[in-house]
Amino acid sequence: MVAQSPAWGQSETKGIRKVLDDQVAAWNRGDIDGYMQGYWNSDSTVFASGGNLTRGYQDVLVRYKKSYDSREKMGSLQFRDLVVRQISPAAAIAMGIWELKRSADKPWGRFTLILEKKPEGWRITHDHTSSADK
Amino acid sequence: MVAQSPAWGQSETKGIRKVLDDQVAAWNRGDIDGYMQGYWNSDSTVFASGGNLTRGYQDVLVRYKKSYDSREKMGSLQFRDLVVRQISPAAAIAMGIWELKRSADKPWGRFTLILEKKPEGWRITHDHTSSADK
Repeated sequence: MVAQSPAWGQSETKGIRKVLDDQVAAWNRGDIDGYMQGYWNSDSTVFASGGNLTRGYQDVLVRYKKSYDSREKMGSLQFRDLVVRQISPAAAIAMGIWELKRSADKPWGRFTLILEKKPEGWRITHDHTSSADK
Repeated sequence: MVAQSPAWGQSETKGIRKVLDDQVAAWNRGDIDGYMQGYWNSDSTVFASGGNLTRGYQDVLVRYKKSYDSREKMGSLQFRDLVVRQISPAAAIAMGIWELKRSADKPWGRFTLILEKKPEGWRITHDHTSSADK
């Protein structure tokens, strides 16, 4: 295990958790633009899922809006089993389980996020999400 | 895009690509132990896929040996569209497409690897793999 200073663990992990908490809160009020604030606003931001790759903040936003074009499809999002690990002073991995509770189904799976500390704060620069169902 | 020094790009990216090339070569001679040399030999090494999480080098090895217990199941592995991005002097993301050519099918999908530079060289410390079929 990479050694982590308690100081890093306390302040930076808290900052990272807040980014993800804010994403969940935005999602659950139907606010995809707000949810997207957790991602780095850059053409090089990456979202990978299944066999698909989406590159760039705008394209990731468009993908989310297409895939979740109603409150029914968005459902209620929860992140579970979140683990944050520092890999450098300005980079961390956050991994966990995502779950959508919807009237029709409860899709879930795992995510690995790379977060980097930008001038505007901790932001997701790379997201690899997989689904348990598919 | 994170600025990368040409020096880093040339020497470290080459080292990372060699780790992955060696994995593919080992896989394609039916050598899962050799393939595993690309992973960090640590209890904290992580392999995530679909809804599953495997933690620790030994457990990842056991999972591979169970899932691919014959040359037919292993098939012929290829990595494509590999992109390596530095996130710190001693950490990088490698992303790409994996494909198995087998007599029965050709499963494929995407991978995101976190590689960290250890005393023994660049090693995968975190692997998130997804399948296009499922």
